Formats: sequence, C-alpha cells, structure tokens
Amino acid sequence: MLSFTEAKAHIANLPLFLQVETIPVWQANGRVLAENIIAAQDLPAWSNSAMDGYAFQRNDIINASEENPIVLPVSNIIQAGSTTQHTLKPNQCVRIFTGAPIPENADIVIMQENVTVTPNGIVIRKCPKQWNNIRQMGEECTAGKVLLKKGTQLDSATIGLALSASIHHVVVWKHPKVGIISTGDELKDPRKGGSLTVGQIWATNTINLQMAFQTMGLDSIDCGIAQDTLDSTRATLLHAIDEQNVDILVSTGGVSVGDFDVVHKALADLPGHRVEMNFWKVKMKPGKPVAIGTIFTPNKTIPIFALPGNPVSALMGFYQFVRPYLLGKMGVPNPELSTIEVTLGEDFQKRGNRLEFVRIWLDRQQDMTIAFSTGHQSSAWMSSFADATALLPFPADKHLLKKGTQCTVQCLPNLGKWPAKWRT
Amino acid sequence: MLSFTEAKAHIANLPLFLQVETIPVWQANGRVLAENIIAAQDLPAWSNSAMDGYAFQRNDIINASEENPIVLPVSNIIQAGSTTQHTLKPNQCVRIFTGAPIPENADIVIMQENVTVTPNGIVIRKCPKQWNNIRQMGEECTAGKVLLKKGTQLDSATIGLALSASIHHVVVWKHPKVGIISTGDELKDPRKGGSLTVGQIWATNTINLQMAFQTMGLDSIDCGIAQDTLDSTRATLLHAIDEQNVDILVSTGGVSVGDFDVVHKALADLPGHRVEMNFWKVKMKPGKPVAIGTIFTPNKTIPIFALPGNPVSALMGFYQFVRPYLLGKMGVPNPELSTIEVTLGEDFQKRGNRLEFVRIWLDRQQDMTIAFSTGHQSSAWMSSFADATALLPFPADKHLLKKGTQCTVQCLPNLGKWPAKWRT
Repeated sequence: MLSFTEAKAHIANLPLFLQVETIPVWQANGRVLAENIIAAQDLPAWSNSAMDGYAFQRNDIINASEENPIVLPVSNIIQAGSTTQHTLKPNQCVRIFTGAPIPENADIVIMQENVTVTPNGIVIRKCPKQWNNIRQMGEECTAGKVLLKKGTQLDSATIGLALSASIHHVVVWKHPKVGIISTGDELKDPRKGGSLTVGQIWATNTINLQMAFQTMGLDSIDCGIAQDTLDSTRATLLHAIDEQNVDILVSTGGVSVGDFDVVHKALADLPGHRVEMNFWKVKMKPGKPVAIGTIFTPNKTIPIFALPGNPVSALMGFYQFVRPYLLGKMGVPNPELSTIEVTLGEDFQKRGNRLEFVRIWLDRQQDMTIAFSTGHQSSAWMSSFADATALLPFPADKHLLKKGTQCTVQCLPNLGKWPAKWRT
Repeated sequence: MLSFTEAKAHIANLPLFLQVETIPVWQANGRVLAENIIAAQDLPAWSNSAMDGYAFQRNDIINASEENPIVLPVSNIIQAGSTTQHTLKPNQCVRIFTGAPIPENADIVIMQENVTVTPNGIVIRKCPKQWNNIRQMGEECTAGKVLLKKGTQLDSATIGLALSASIHHVVVWKHPKVGIISTGDELKDPRKGGSLTVGQIWATNTINLQMAFQTMGLDSIDCGIAQDTLDSTRATLLHAIDEQNVDILVSTGGVSVGDFDVVHKALADLPGHRVEMNFWKVKMKPGKPVAIGTIFTPNKTIPIFALPGNPVSALMGFYQFVRPYLLGKMGVPNPELSTIEVTLGEDFQKRGNRLEFVRIWLDRQQDMTIAFSTGHQSSAWMSSFADATALLPFPADKHLLKKGTQCTVQCLPNLGKWPAKWRT
C-alpha cells in the first residue's frame, strides 16, 4: 500500500486542464493570479503630504534656530483633491493637508503642531530633514516593477494594492469545472425532501464537498447519485465527462473491496475513454480506500479523485488531496492547510501503522495553544469533524503522543468554532 | 485618548438590528446559527455494519475456539441500501456489507478477513465481543439532543452533520445591510474607468472593505463617495440611512483633525437623526483617528464605524473593530482574528506609546513559526499589508521586542500567500 507521501507525489503530477481569464480586479476576491501584476504607475503617483502642515523649501530655512527663527508667509492652501500643480516661490510656504500634492520645489512638510502661526506667516525654529513628512513619488513601488506575484490568491489588501497602482484588470486562473458524483443504493437526496426508511441515509457527501469547494472559492457541479451497479456507475461517470464536460471529477463511495463497490470496475472499462489509475489505497486513516487517476478524453485529461463513501473519510480526502492539488496547480505557494505548533493537552494513542489524521480542537491557555481530541475518532462520526478546528497528523510509526508534547497540526478553514467541550 | 481595550468595550455595547431567517442547510455555508440545532433523529438512525463481513448472534458461537470451530450457514445477503428488515434465525448468519442495516437479533459483525468460507457456511474459531463492528442506533447522538450550538458558523462538516440527522432547514442570522461610504475630493472611482491626474488617487477603500466583508461571507452596499464639504457628506450619510436603509454604516476618511475633515461635523448635526458618538480617537497605530457611535432612526439604531481614510488604517479598523463586532453580535464564540504563538525572527522596534499592529509574515522553520516584518510600516504602504499573513500586537508600553521572543499574533484570513521576502 502506498504511503501518504508517495500518494501526494503521484497526485502532484496529475495534469489539469486550466485556462486563464481577464476580469476586473474588484471581482477577483479569492481568485489566483495566473500572471505577475506589473505596476502601471509609480506608487504613490505623485509626491504628497503625510501630515496636515506647511510645505516649503529646505534651503530657505537651513539656518533656522531658536536664536534665528525664520518666518515664511503662507502663499496658498492645498487640500487633498486639489488638482492644480502649485509652484512654490522662494521664502514662502503653503498650508497643506494630508494626501495633498506637494508643490514643485518644496522638499519638506512641517507638522502644524510644530510651528507658530503669526499674521506674517509661520515661524520655524529648527530645520527638519529633507523629505520630512513627504511621501515621495515612487517610494513604495515604481512603474514596471512586479507588484504582486502569480500564484497570489487575491484578497482585500492585494486588490487594494493593485487598484492603487492603476491595475484595473487581472489575469487569473479560470475556475475549473468541478464535478461531484456520489455512489450508493442507500443514499437519498435531502434536497428532494421526504424521510428515511431503515437502510437509507441522507446523501450528504455531495453537499459536504460542494460547501468545502465553496469555502475555497470554487463552484462545483452536482453530477448525481449512481446506484451500486456497473451500468449506473458507468452512465453517471460518462454523463459527467461527456455531457457536463467537467475538468476534474470527485466521486465518493464504491472504492473499497466490497463485492458491491463498482467504481473500480466502471473505471477499468469506461467506454470511449482510457483511464489510468495511480493507486487504490493509501496507508492513512481515515480515508484508506481512495483512488486517484486520470481519464483521457479526446479534448483534455480529467483527474479523478475517487474518495471513500464515508463522509468523514471523504472530507479528509478533500482536505489532504483535492484542495492542495487544485491550489498547487494554480501556483499558490502554500496550498496545504496552514500548519502551526501546539502542545498536546492529553495523551493521544493509536493502533495500527497508518498515518492518522486526528480531529482536534485548539484551546488558548496562558499564551499557549493546547490541542484536545474532539472525541470518538471513528470515521462514522461526523460530529467529531464538526467540532474540529485542526487536524493532528499522528505519524504511521508512532502509537503514543504524550500530553505536553509539541506537535505540528493543520488548521481547518473555520477556526472560530465552539470548543468541543460543550458536548460533554 | 481611549486605549484599545476601552474602545473595544464601547464597541461591544453598540446595539445592532439583527433579524433571523430560515433557509435550507445546503444554502447555509458560512452562515451563523441563531438557534441551537436539535437532532431530529438518532445518529445513526438504525444500527448498521461498520465492515464488510458476516452478522450473527453472539450466543450461537459463544463457545467457538480453535478446538471447537462453529459453522454458520449463510442465509442471506444484505447490502448497503437494502430496505428490507431482515430477521436472523438462530445458528445462521448473513453476508453483510459496510453501511447495511443489521438484521434483528444480530449483535456481532465479523470481518470477512477473519473467517473461513466453506460450502456449508462460515467457520468461526473465536468469539468476538458483543456489538463488534456494529454502529449502534443513536450511539453518536440521540433525537432531541443539541447537535450544534447557536453561534456556530456553518461549514462543510457541520452542514454534513446537520443533514445526516434529518435537519434540512436552519434558523440563521439574516445578513445585516452593510453600507460603505468613502469621503474625499481626491478620490476617483476605478470602476468608472479613466486615469488619474496629479492630486487624484483611486478610491480603493470601498472596494477593499467590500472584499473584506465578502471574505467573511457578507455582501455590502457601496453608498458612494462624499466630497469634502459638509453638504455632500451629510447628503451621502442621509441617503445611506434613509434611502438605502442600511443596518450598519462604515465610512472611511474625514475623521481626523484637518480643517477639511467633515464627517465629524456632519454627524454632530445630522438632520432628522440623533447621533451619539462614543469616541473619536483610539491609542493605536495604524488607525488612531477612528470614530464609533450610534445613529438613532425612528425604526432602528445604526452603529457607525467612521474609519480613517488611509487604506491601511481603514483595513486595520475593519479587522480590529468591524469584523469582530459583527461576528460577536451573531454569537460566534471566537469573533476576533485567531491567535497563535510565534517566535520573532528579528528585532521589532517602535516609538511612541500607542498599541501598534505590525504587519508581519510567518515562515515555518524546523517546526517553528517565525515572524518577520513585511517591511515599511507606514500607514501609506499597502504593499506591507498585501504581504502580511498576520498582525503582531506591539504593546503600547514596549519599545523593543527582541529576536527570539515568543509573541501572540493574529492570523489574517489569507495564510497561503507568497512569503514577503520575494520583494527584496
């Protein structure tokens, strides 16, 4: 059986059909840059005042001191928004406000708190440094320089930065068409209403995964529920590939060794398409029965992530495999869940020799982050995933992690949850 | 001047007009529960098999051993999705698959790997524990128990959990109508095209804030740009309040002491509405000139957050004040930015006695998280916010934080960024 690390290496090599598009930057929140952004103008575009005060030429007051105060008459007022280019005459000053353009020749702004105002002008008793309180044109960035790197996932601050440098449109990765298939005779679609009989469960996997894709900014297509027959599974796969034209396919269920697990068989003989599967199992828990491969169509290649049917295992497969794969293909520098160091608040034990991702919650105690199990770690218990704010990778070859140990954990996207202790 | 802590206490007390609504749970990603969710059924709803194997009665094989193997004929096959309630006859077993309902009377499932199959039935050489490999009805949660607490911000796992317990609709907080106003003669709306002349800058604040609200799951309304006159500012405020009917108002600019800062004056005398301002300045950096208060209308009270015009300061005010205020009012247990412990990778110095939020980036080195400044900390430099993955609160009374010190920092929502070092 493949190790987790070996599985990740296989996945990183799966090709993905990705296109780019150009969109207004104010519609690009969460999108990933497919090209570097080059500043279209200097930042700032023109020298401006960092303070409310007075602007003048340093040479005019170079000899100012307590003994030799120099008076500069105020020749003008420049407020923010003034579009007149003022020129400063020698031995004069202008009243200037934060963000207003510095007049030509001026090389100092003195704060209003630091001068005395008289009917004849302002009195200066000390010569400040040149460029004092002036934000000089181009000091943050000059036109033509790289402002943001490709692979940046745009957010409030990066969008603000791009806009301020006159970038109004950006080239981003087009969202791939993500298709999701569920399999299993026992599944009933909750969106169609009704209630359960014995033997049925609600089909939650497709919805779970759609929410998880949404949280990473991606829409996804519900490609239906396949029954546990070869014909139904094949038909559902072919519909997603040929009719719904997906770029990446995620399925849940039908991949373990049970006699009725038919995704395996359907992919082994998919009419009209060659399929290459990289593996069918990974030495991890939860989520061992997971199959990854590529479907070759005449137009493109479609990566397929065949996740387990168990909702906990399916979501784990999403966080460990699908999410980092997609972000990685778009060039995001840290596509994995963010990791931090924590201190274990209790002993963690496991049997077996698989890498286990333990659902944990993080508590803050005296400037330390303490990790506790969210409870029953069965892959049938979604409540212990619902309470989790992080995942503890419990190494394959370890069986005990003692209370007090420092460990690296993966943060889940929703850190603001109730601590799981309310359940007890 | 108020301390940051005092300002936060004022803000927590501002009333907010919040309504609830009932929506399908599959449309509730990111929404906050306004009521506890009570399980509508047991979880699981019926006892089922955790493995592919054979189900039977423990009593029938209680004496099984290597010396005394017991053979049970296979009377039936139950696959997942079977809705027939089987009853097991004594001294028989059924072939059963993962997720399939346990027949009445059966109290053990034995894994298929652990039995020998013969033409006469399966051979059992050891008696397992009762309920072995059976997920018992109600073991995760029983109908009527609290499944999720109010204040939970729904995500993939919590939505999956609710659905599995037959919860299809949830009562969540309705999104408040967030209005955003920018002020300043120097501002030009980038969405209207064109280019800048000297004295003009792109109006980025409204867009920045809209993106930041979007990231926390909220839509917001662009309530326009006010000119630096009392009339224009008043008219823009009144339009947002009376015509656009906002529930919360965020403005940027016009709140410092400059002669042209008119938000102060407009709020002091807003025709038809009483306004109570709590404060006009906070001892923090960036973001000192920030005013918070309440506008009383005949129908409701509207909190107003008058943030500084500087884009860095405005965004800081959003993260420190606006975001936690809104999440807190909805009952989210940890409404502030998540905090973690890091080790400083360099000396941090500051002058003055304000609490400073330093924009930093986090590096992972040998299982430690190391914090570095993103560069120039001027409130005019958005690039050092764009590169930031966290904020370091530098205490008001400290002036040096030495390299190697352990500090608590606030994580920004976008942790997957390029490390800021690429700029150098």
